[in-house]
This record gives sequence, C-alpha cells and structure tokens, in this order.
Amino acid sequence: MASKIKNYKVIAAAKRAQQQDKIPKSWRIPTDRFRDATNVMDIPLTCGLLDETESRITSDYDATALLEKLRARVWSVEQVTVAFCKRAAIAHQLTNCLTEIFFDDAIERAKKLDLEYDQKSRENALPPLFGLPISLKDSYQVSGYDTSTGLGCYVDQPAEDNSALAAMLIDLGAVLYSKTNLPQSIMTGDSDNNIFGRTLNPRNKLLTVGGSTGGEGALIALRGSILGVGTDIGGSIRVPSVCNGIYGFRPSVDLVPHGGVRDLTPPGTDGIRSTAGPMATSLRDCSLFLKTILQADTWKYDSTSISVPWTNIKPAHKLRIGVAQNDGVYTPSPPVRRALKQAVDLLRDNDDIQIIPINLPDVKSHYQDIISYFTLSGSDQFARTGEPVIPSLEAIGLLSVPGTTLQGFFDLNVRRAEAAKKYLKLFRDNEIDVILMPPAPNTAVPLDCWTRAAYTSLWNYLDYPAIVIPVDHVRDIDSADDLRNAQFGPEDEKLYSLYTGPEQYKDAPICIQVVGYRHKDEALLRAAAVLDSIINSI
Amino acid sequence: MASKIKNYKVIAAAKRAQQQDKIPKSWRIPTDRFRDATNVMDIPLTCGLLDETESRITSDYDATALLEKLRARVWSVEQVTVAFCKRAAIAHQLTNCLTEIFFDDAIERAKKLDLEYDQKSRENALPPLFGLPISLKDSYQVSGYDTSTGLGCYVDQPAEDNSALAAMLIDLGAVLYSKTNLPQSIMTGDSDNNIFGRTLNPRNKLLTVGGSTGGEGALIALRGSILGVGTDIGGSIRVPSVCNGIYGFRPSVDLVPHGGVRDLTPPGTDGIRSTAGPMATSLRDCSLFLKTILQADTWKYDSTSISVPWTNIKPAHKLRIGVAQNDGVYTPSPPVRRALKQAVDLLRDNDDIQIIPINLPDVKSHYQDIISYFTLSGSDQFARTGEPVIPSLEAIGLLSVPGTTLQGFFDLNVRRAEAAKKYLKLFRDNEIDVILMPPAPNTAVPLDCWTRAAYTSLWNYLDYPAIVIPVDHVRDIDSADDLRNAQFGPEDEKLYSLYTGPEQYKDAPICIQVVGYRHKDEALLRAAAVLDSIINSI
Repeated sequence: MASKIKNYKVIAAAKRAQQQDKIPKSWRIPTDRFRDATNVMDIPLTCGLLDETESRITSDYDATALLEKLRARVWSVEQVTVAFCKRAAIAHQLTNCLTEIFFDDAIERAKKLDLEYDQKSRENALPPLFGLPISLKDSYQVSGYDTSTGLGCYVDQPAEDNSALAAMLIDLGAVLYSKTNLPQSIMTGDSDNNIFGRTLNPRNKLLTVGGSTGGEGALIALRGSILGVGTDIGGSIRVPSVCNGIYGFRPSVDLVPHGGVRDLTPPGTDGIRSTAGPMATSLRDCSLFLKTILQADTWKYDSTSISVPWTNIKPAHKLRIGVAQNDGVYTPSPPVRRALKQAVDLLRDNDDIQIIPINLPDVKSHYQDIISYFTLSGSDQFARTGEPVIPSLEAIGLLSVPGTTLQGFFDLNVRRAEAAKKYLKLFRDNEIDVILMPPAPNTAVPLDCWTRAAYTSLWNYLDYPAIVIPVDHVRDIDSADDLRNAQFGPEDEKLYSLYTGPEQYKDAPICIQVVGYRHKDEALLRAAAVLDSIINSI
Repeated sequence: MASKIKNYKVIAAAKRAQQQDKIPKSWRIPTDRFRDATNVMDIPLTCGLLDETESRITSDYDATALLEKLRARVWSVEQVTVAFCKRAAIAHQLTNCLTEIFFDDAIERAKKLDLEYDQKSRENALPPLFGLPISLKDSYQVSGYDTSTGLGCYVDQPAEDNSALAAMLIDLGAVLYSKTNLPQSIMTGDSDNNIFGRTLNPRNKLLTVGGSTGGEGALIALRGSILGVGTDIGGSIRVPSVCNGIYGFRPSVDLVPHGGVRDLTPPGTDGIRSTAGPMATSLRDCSLFLKTILQADTWKYDSTSISVPWTNIKPAHKLRIGVAQNDGVYTPSPPVRRALKQAVDLLRDNDDIQIIPINLPDVKSHYQDIISYFTLSGSDQFARTGEPVIPSLEAIGLLSVPGTTLQGFFDLNVRRAEAAKKYLKLFRDNEIDVILMPPAPNTAVPLDCWTRAAYTSLWNYLDYPAIVIPVDHVRDIDSADDLRNAQFGPEDEKLYSLYTGPEQYKDAPICIQVVGYRHKDEALLRAAAVLDSIINSI
C-alpha cells in the first residue's frame, strides 16, 4: 500500500482518464461554456445533446410512472437506458457526480431485457423493476468495477461479486449504469476525495452538494437518475437530499440489504449501523423501492437482513404529528424556520391531521455518544490510507478522538437503551404517528462548512426511519436575522451566523424531515405521503 | 453487599420460609411419603389434593384447548386459576421448582376477570389469553416480587415494574401466578442455586432437570403449568425441554419482548443475545404464544423489540428437511440416535416431505467463538456475588476465561458474519425449509454432568429460531454401546461414556430439534407442526 499512497495523484489521474473514456465522444458537452454558471439545472435540456424523446423520458416521470411506460412498451428499455446514460453523462460533466461508469454494459443489458419482454406473453410475468435505470453510491459493489470509495488504495481492484442489494436490483429487473461520488471517509457533508475530486451542487456551485451520498444528490437533481441508492449512518442519504432538494429515505437498519457495502468503519464494528435506502424525485418512489425490496425475500441475498414484510397497512385514525421546531442544540436558520412554519400551517388546516408540539429530550448528551459510536476504534479509521485529508473531514473534528474500550462500548449501549426507552415514551405519551422537524439546522451551506448535527444522526442512534421531503427553496424574503435568535449558546451562534441571506444561498432547497418509529417504515412512508400531498399540493 | 454475601445462608433460610408460607396449609402434601420415589409424575393426581374438576382442568388440555373452555365458560377463570395454583404447589413440593409464589394475587385477578367477562356481552371482546395461567422464569420482573435469580444480593428487592413481557401478558388477559427456578449464573444445565436450592427432574430425580429454565421444565412436566416463559442464550429454553420431555421454542432475538429481564451478563453487552420464548405441552401452544405476542404491538412495550408481523403464511411446496445427524463435535448417545432415526424414517415415508442429509459446517470453531461471546467481560460476571459456586457452574469451565477487548469483540463479529453467510448458503444450496437434528448429544444426564454443546448454542450464535419436540423416552432396547462409536476424539468419548444404559436413564425423555432460518419463526412453527403431526401421530 505504501507505494500506492505516494502515488495517489498518479492513480487519480489515470482513474479520471479512464472515466473520461467511458463517456462517448458524441456525448461530450462544451463544459467551458458552463463553467461560470452557478446554477446548471437547465443545461441538460438546453445543451442540445438530448433529443425530444430523451428529454421527455428523463424529465417527465418519476420511477413509478416510468415503470408503467416501460411495461406498456411506450418506450423500450434500450431507449430509456440510453436516455438516462446520456443525461447522467451531462450531469457528470457539469457536477463531477459519477465514479464508475458502465453505460455500455447497461445498454447491452437493456437490449437483453427488451428481447426477454418480446418472448414473454403476459405483462405481469415481468420483474417489478423491469427496465428501470438505478444508480448506486460508489460504496456498493458491482461486479467487474472498482469499489474505491475515492481512496487510491482501492483503485483497480474490480469487485468479484455484486453487493447484496446490487444483485437483488438486477434480479428485480433494474438496469445499473453508474456509481456516484462520495467524500473521503464517507462521513462528511461535502462529497470530495483525492481520486475523483469534488461533486458540485447543480443548483448553486458555491454551496455544498452534501454528503456522503452527494454524487447521487447531484445526479438525481439533474435527472441523470430518478432513483438512486445511498447509505446513511449519520445522515448520508438525508443531507444530500436536503442540499439537492430531492426525496431521501433512511430505512430502519437491515430492512434493505446492506451486505457487501464498503464502509470505512472497521469490519465487525457494532453500535450505530449504516443503512441502505433510496433517493428519488417523488415520495411514492421511496415507497416503491422499499415495497419491492421487502416483497422480494431479502434474506436470500443477505445474511444480515431483517425480514419485515410489507403488509399494505391502512391508517386507522387521524394522523397525529409531533412537531419539533429544533433539536435543542442548534437553532434552524431563518429559511428553514420559515418553511417548517409554512408546512405546519398547511397541515394544521387539514381535518385529517392533528399537530402536537414536542421537544426532543437530551439531544446534546446523545450527540456526545453518537460521536463516540462513530469513533469506537479511534479516529485513524477515517484517514488511515495516508492520503491528504480533505478539508471537510478536517473540519468535522472526528480526527482527534481516542476510541474506547469494550466496557466503554457497553456503557454506550446502556445509555442508548435508556434513550430508546425515553423516545418510545415520547411516541406513546403523545400518541404520535410520526415526528415532523427540520432535517438540519440549515440548507446547503458554503463548501466545507457543513456541521454534523444531531438532526439526522439522532435517528441513526435510535434506528428510527426518517425521510426528507423538499418543500421550498431560499427566497428573497429570507433575510439573515439577529444572532440573538440563536437560542443555544456560542456553538449555535457560530452555525447560525453562517446564514448570510438569500443572495449567497440563492436556489438552496429547503426540506422537512418526517421520522417514524423503529421498524414502522411502511407506516412512516404512508404518513409522509399524506403530509407531502398536503404540503406540496400548491 | 458484603454483609449480604456473608449471610446468604440466613437470607436463603428466610426466603424459603416465606416461600413455604405462600402455600396454604390445606395444599400441603406429605412429601416424606414421596421422598424415595425416583419418578413423581403420577403424584399430582394420586396425592388426593385435586378434586375431579381440578384434575381435569389441569390434565386434559393444552393452552389452546383450555382457552376455548375459558371463553365458553365451561370453567370460570377462578376455577382454572385455583386448579393450576394447587397443582403448581404440588409440583413445587415434589421438585422445588418455584421461586416467587403469588397464588393470592392470581386468584384475586381471576375473580376480577370473571366479573369483567360477565360485564362484556360478546365473546370476541375478550383479550386473546383471557384467563390463561402462565408461569414465568424467575428472571422476569413481576411488580411487587423479587427478581432474585437465586442470588442473595437481590433478595428482598421487590420489582417496581413488570418486565415488558409480563406487562404484555397481563394486558393480553393472562393470569400470572408463580415464577420458577434457575441456576446461579443462569448459564448451566442444572437449575440449582444457593437461595432456592436445586429443582429436581420429576421423571427421574437422579437426572438433571436441565437449565437454565429448569423450574419451568419440572412445573410443566407435572402440569403445574401448561404454558411457561423462559429465556435462551445458549439453550436455556431447549435444554430443560429436552430433560422434561416438553415443547420449548427459542424465537429469533427480540421478536418476543425481552426488556426488563434480569440477565447476569453485564448491562450493555452485545454479541449473542438472550431471547424470550415459550415452553408448553403442545406445539400449537408455542404458535399460539408467538402469534398472540406478534399481533399485539410489541413495540409499545419494549424499545428493543423487532416488529415482525404474524402473516398466517401458507407453505407453497413440499417441505424440504435438512437432517443433521450430529454437530461434528459430539456423537449423540444411542437413545438419541435411535429416536432421530425413528423420526426420520417416519418422515421419509411421507409424500409431503423431502429429506436432505446435511452436515453442519465448522461447528467446533464456531463453538470457541460462542464461548468467547459468553465471556466477553471475563468470567467474573458469573460468580461475582461472592456466594459459593454451584457444582454445575464450576463444571462448565466458564470460570477461567479472561474476557476480550473491543477489537477482539469486533473480530468475533467478523467471524460471526462469515458464519452467517455460510449457513445461509447451506439453507439456499440445499433449498431446505428447516433443519432437523438432535437438540443435544444426550438426554437428561446425572446431576451436574450436563456439558454445554453447540447443538443448541449454534442457533443462538446465528440467531436462528429453534424448537424442541419430545418424541420418545429411553427404552430397554437402548443399551450403551462401544465407545468406539464416539467419532470425534477424546472429549466426545468422555461425553459418550456418560450414557450407561437404560437403567440409569429410566424415563428420560428424548427430543428432536427443528431449526428455521432467522426471523422465519412463523415458517419454522408451521414446518415443525407438520413434522410433529407425523412423528407423534402414532
């Protein structure tokens, strides 16, 4: 490994040249022309690469609707695959969002699926994800391609097997066509590493794209994908969903197979566990994803799966929504507060909804334990390759934590069990179905300034499923306000001061987060669908 | 605690005197008369304490059938409760199987339930376990009573709350009336401790009653209970089921609420986890138990629960049974081999069953890791109160293990994950629904001779659900045979030599074990019901 460390620049250059070669010459766009654009959201449709059909295929549908078109043979799998490969190529040239590119394989598979369709007489013999292009975070193994996670030491080591979820998606009829960028360490809010470089936020290149599943965030925002899969151990699906204004769902651990995913935590680590989940352009696509997976015998693919069946539950009563304005540690910035208030006002007007104000207990002390769980083996785990540390990893302060002992680990578990009791009591005493709160104290922030907060990681700690729903974007009315509005002390003030007003934060999406009880993922998705339909109907 | 340790004998004497007082004078039987009987199974019906109705109530039904009678008001809850309290009192006087006795409370509750029934018009408004007496292992907390687990340091500390499962059973309509004995450390195959003493095997007092849920084993064998709840971290439900010839089911971890149970592992310990499950006189009662629990919102009672719903699955195909003759470490004794062969022969004749011979891979090395998991914090955990160590705890060799580090724990987890993949492959490659094998290499053995083997604990290690089904008992034809039949070396020979022939092992039950895949508990129970109906139909 020593020589590889020295040569990470050489490795990176070679890897990026290979990457460039994977994009057909005819799909290249004049990137120089767009270099100065802060917001590149329009370019996929204006750059001239997509024909009308490709524009429609990639623009007009969510995955649920596209699957209907595929089944009805409005378009062939090949047409759909080529369209998304092209649009992903555009997205990559604009934001540097891809890592492994396998358009050729995807198009070949698409042709095979088309042939298979012709041979099958009945529509319902088709697999549930027939012909749907799905993108994956780089940490999923795809046979024949690297799982480098942006580290030189893992480059040029093609996977021999598919990770459990990749294998499953293929068996379910999906078409895999690319993997997406992430931060060195897979632990920060900026998707930046020494091999692939930084992924940019397509709505505002001066703000972070989010992390760790940031490549997916940019790719889906630009509709180079409409369904991607990330992982989330502290917010890694939800943070880039916030930064890119898309839907992102963190399921309870092990409902979606996580086997064969490359994490940077030492093998065998327990405590807070990473979970696999979808990022999408609609809420119903998050449901489609979970339902399809849960109905497909996850246990056969992954010995760590929990087989909770999908039961098509119906809500028996008025939805009771516990609303938490903040986590008691960081005050949400003015646009985040405004959008939450707007959402709650809409819900309050609805007869099927009851709003219950709640406070999240003891988040500050839980957050201490969350950090301890993330650094059980000490900080070395995050920078162990010897490559230079990316700025956002330096900034989050996980590099000087000493690790713990077995007894220390057990002590953490005891406190976590107590927290779990307390939060169960919060759910039961208030008889709430879900919690509604901001997914972060801020929107996307300037590069390398994302502060890890408990807004997302609290739910990893408790293993509660949580979903991010885009509801608005920063508007001219969202002026920066007095620092005295930061209620929780100097650290809070520091983060609060990061919001300077609508100019710097132009086009930054604003999202809400809906949190369900552990293993009640289906119930969460149902409740979230109701909220989404009310809040986003206007 | 120091003075308590010194005085454990005083504490024990006081505790047992209190216990004696809890048995009404009119329910006492002339125990002297039965002292020399090796098998006391007939005595509950011959001692004259139970009237004809009480004899019928306690003898003629399993829990499923008794619930029907209770609902139909053939008998009142009070009648049923008194009958079981009386028979439990007899069982206790014969085998020393109870710890906490709360007959008074139970009868009072029974009267209340009878009143409630009278006030409710429709039968189906009754809770699912309406009026059913259920006994609990001592480690479950029942409000107002000790959870001493046979240790002086915990005596006279009545619980303030019910454990999650106790609370749930009460809400479901059950009547709790006593708790049952277990070994010091809750880790051995002899239910013996310094406070309550040893529970005897009612079929043969010279053989162990099994452990750790041995009190339940004796109580249910004598029908002082027809449904009890134990815990199982290495075989603690299944071993006493084997020794007493009853049904015992170890569900996957956390399907049945385990919160508020006193274990002797240090709080926060992870790794192999204890699970709660039923012991019963029929297989369908094990299903009744799991179904009732899973349908009753376990999450509301216990923040550690996994909410896998009961789905009334139907098997889609011929059952494929993988048969393992042994674990590759210990050779089953002649009667155990004979009974397994008998069972397999019966199954082979059945058109709905396919038998697939399998070998369990690498059990010996997994067993090393199982021991390491049991002693993560070192051996002190098992004898930390300073009381004298019971012989069976001394014998199992867990008292000289040094414990491990956090890295050692992670390494164990890595190997366990590999084992899980290997055993998933065993299930998938052979397309088996369940594994059929002996639950132990032996039947009940002489006192303090039970050797922990991987036959049960392998399934705790992998978290596979497993059920013990009684199929026969030692017969005259079961001669001891040549030690050369012990195939796996000196340790195996040593255990094999323990079987001396039918005389010493008179009336010892023989059981089989059926093992399902993780979280497929409902499927296991369905398959086991088919096997049970074939094997036990004659």
